Amino acid sequence: MPNYVLTIGNVTRELPYVRVNANSTLPIVELVGDWELTNAVADEMVKLLPKKFDVLLTTTVSGVPLAHALAERTRKPYVTARKRRRTYMQDPLIQAVESMTLGVNETLWLDARHGEKLKGKKVVIVGDVVVSGSTQQALAKLTEKAGGEVVAFVAAFKQGKPAIQVKAAVELPS
Amino acid sequence: MPNYVLTIGNVTRELPYVRVNANSTLPIVELVGDWELTNAVADEMVKLLPKKFDVLLTTTVSGVPLAHALAERTRKPYVTARKRRRTYMQDPLIQAVESMTLGVNETLWLDARHGEKLKGKKVVIVGDVVVSGSTQQALAKLTEKAGGEVVAFVAAFKQGKPAIQVKAAVELPS
Repeated sequence: MPNYVLTIGNVTRELPYVRVNANSTLPIVELVGDWELTNAVADEMVKLLPKKFDVLLTTTVSGVPLAHALAERTRKPYVTARKRRRTYMQDPLIQAVESMTLGVNETLWLDARHGEKLKGKKVVIVGDVVVSGSTQQALAKLTEKAGGEVVAFVAAFKQGKPAIQVKAAVELPS
Repeated sequence: MPNYVLTIGNVTRELPYVRVNANSTLPIVELVGDWELTNAVADEMVKLLPKKFDVLLTTTVSGVPLAHALAERTRKPYVTARKRRRTYMQDPLIQAVESMTLGVNETLWLDARHGEKLKGKKVVIVGDVVVSGSTQQALAKLTEKAGGEVVAFVAAFKQGKPAIQVKAAVELPS
């Protein structure tokens, strides 16, 4: 199968297809390790953000460079939920991800110090590749637990039919 | 114990001390979630880089926003070793981290596609907080396995006496 050619702004990447299960292969896109693609897609995502918001929320690992780039462009803070408990976390908020695509249940951890940054705030949930939307739903529940309000879901890439309303810079074939 | 006050460029942060074991507390600094501090320290780290290098190498999670910022400043690529195997990895290079401070042995995974980016290249190993240097040593071994040459170790923060020669933007108390 030939590579999938992705162009965003003046950045072009040939994405290899990988087999994700018995029935399907998908083009794989990675922002971690690719600052040019990350910055190009962040430039597009800025246009998808709501006029009023206070803070961006994402997860490790793949959301991190993207949230960094979006945060510096909008001069807003970003908060990162972790997929592993860190030793320094105190009273973390915990949320299970009800994932069918991953085949395993993941858990998100948010240090109480970071949860406080969501309290009473308008929160935009940022994803890199959104497929089922299960991670985004878990981040929305974490936001509620922390006392914040989700005002939008935005993503770099969307594949298939996520369970949430998400604005994406690019729709990948599925 | 009062917070530790860190100033880099025009960014100031009060770092809380956390207990890391029975004998010591350390100020904890996080670049993930803090694009202003990340960019300020990247501006300092650019000055520590060797004149000639081809690619930056770091690890997930905490090295990622820093490597992104350094890579965009120097217009070089960066490569990220992962701490968990990803489903899409093919023929990954694998390296154990001989860690005493973490109390657990971690494993680094580098997808063969990314390992190829190190082959025959001059590699700078980038860390966020370097304490023992064990992660940096493991990244150096990964570089060798991939056929690259380590030309420098640089870090945002250094605490204590790492086992490697590392240039750091800031020395934290230990």
